[in-house]
Amino acid sequence: MFTSGDDRKLFLGIDGGGSKCKAIVMDENNDILGTGISGPGNPLHGFEQATHSITESAKLALKDAGLENIALHELIAGVGLAGVNLPALYDEMSAWQHPFKQMFLAHDLLIACLGAHHSHSGAVIISGTGSCGFSCIDEQEVLLGGHGFPHGDKGSGAWFGLQATKQVLLSLDGMVAPTIMNDILLAKLGCTDTTAIVEAIAGKKATFYAQLANLVFDAAEQGDNVALSIVKEGAEYINSLARSLLVKKPARISMLGGLTPRLKSWLDEDIQAQLSEPLSPPEVGAVYFARNKLAKDKQSQQKMA
Amino acid sequence: MFTSGDDRKLFLGIDGGGSKCKAIVMDENNDILGTGISGPGNPLHGFEQATHSITESAKLALKDAGLENIALHELIAGVGLAGVNLPALYDEMSAWQHPFKQMFLAHDLLIACLGAHHSHSGAVIISGTGSCGFSCIDEQEVLLGGHGFPHGDKGSGAWFGLQATKQVLLSLDGMVAPTIMNDILLAKLGCTDTTAIVEAIAGKKATFYAQLANLVFDAAEQGDNVALSIVKEGAEYINSLARSLLVKKPARISMLGGLTPRLKSWLDEDIQAQLSEPLSPPEVGAVYFARNKLAKDKQSQQKMA
Repeated sequence: MFTSGDDRKLFLGIDGGGSKCKAIVMDENNDILGTGISGPGNPLHGFEQATHSITESAKLALKDAGLENIALHELIAGVGLAGVNLPALYDEMSAWQHPFKQMFLAHDLLIACLGAHHSHSGAVIISGTGSCGFSCIDEQEVLLGGHGFPHGDKGSGAWFGLQATKQVLLSLDGMVAPTIMNDILLAKLGCTDTTAIVEAIAGKKATFYAQLANLVFDAAEQGDNVALSIVKEGAEYINSLARSLLVKKPARISMLGGLTPRLKSWLDEDIQAQLSEPLSPPEVGAVYFARNKLAKDKQSQQKMA
Repeated sequence: MFTSGDDRKLFLGIDGGGSKCKAIVMDENNDILGTGISGPGNPLHGFEQATHSITESAKLALKDAGLENIALHELIAGVGLAGVNLPALYDEMSAWQHPFKQMFLAHDLLIACLGAHHSHSGAVIISGTGSCGFSCIDEQEVLLGGHGFPHGDKGSGAWFGLQATKQVLLSLDGMVAPTIMNDILLAKLGCTDTTAIVEAIAGKKATFYAQLANLVFDAAEQGDNVALSIVKEGAEYINSLARSLLVKKPARISMLGGLTPRLKSWLDEDIQAQLSEPLSPPEVGAVYFARNKLAKDKQSQQKMA
């Protein structure tokens, strides 16, 4: 049992995303003591919201661990946040008067990669609402894709949903032949004609389109040739992300993101064969990040002594 | 010279679009007496803004005609507005306590078609910021496309700009080979790398992408194969819009919209051969619309008498 002022180190890992912030409390043996979830923890949604969510999720994780007696300033925090690859957001979050003993800040892809591989070296291909490829080998980072919607993020949930919508609108105009995907999309949106679809999708963002991704796979699995060619085009892009990352020979490569269960089996067999299951979630990767930084700080202090 | 209270009819034509509202004053002989331009006249931007712009542009057209002595309530107005094909906006604009003697409300495609052909019967293919096909033959209207950005409007300026951006981002990631279009796009955006482009385009709307359309044609004309295939794909869609409309055998078909000068020569030769120059702009079409409606009202009154 940890008590306040205990000499043993306690670590907090944070994965702050656009819809939720996940926290984990771990001890020096990397044992998980407790977890917590709060609202959006992504500084793209505002500094106040992000710092509030990080603090809340940390308190919830401590409570879950039965460590209400431990104060936040006793935790060494690894904080992984979407958006902090942008210098302005990195600086803003670094300047935060945080409540922790120490805080080490990383972007979300790095902690995802560290979590997946329990190591500095590895690669991830991600297809969720967005898509990208990322590797970190000997501290050299490579980022491919992840440019956003609608201009990037090929092979992501939002991309699949948008392709389906485009195709169905073309077929309702008689520009291309309708396929099974039409009926599935119209049913999903609760629409019966073009005007209703256009009203339903006007101004919608990536998260809306990502909810339509599954129906492209449903249609493809029913033999819909149009859906099949969308699935193949999306899978081919994710294949190329993987191939580009594999050039650097990462020790491991994993596929992450909400579309993984649907998309993985459509990737080229040689790519599928090289994919390893992710070992831990990003918030655990955030703890590894903090521990790596601490160890490095110690090394450089020893060198200077 | 018209004077207030004159028995002769004066007509006002309005073309209310997303960026400006154009007004024209014409007499019973269809002679143009004056024109005026004001701000956005599209009720999608709000009722107050639209009605203000319509009134302002009308006053400016009267002034341009040297008819400051004529009041708005002496004008018979044909008002063509983007968006009033949606029932809610049509009802809102119809309920306007307008300052004119009479007001006849139409959607923007109908007045564009009436202006282009000086008749009820004809078809138009449009490629500007957006794209669509429209025909009105014996008062039967057909609308193809025009579903909006990014899910529709293939072959439009916004679509061309988006395709170029996607392609350049893929090539900067090394996913496809770079072409001439890369340098042209980077120069146009004043960017040198992926991060700068992604920041420059984040959250941008159709009008932003439409400004990039010309560079796709520039690159294609320099022999860039990637740009060429984008131009051909966009042109093929506009070809199919035209072919679908031609099934109904319109007396005339014209191509309209800001991208016409660049795109027209890329259409199939048999389509190009069938295109007629538009005879008048949409605001003149709005006057024709009002005159047609007046004539029809008169006919039905005579029948009832």
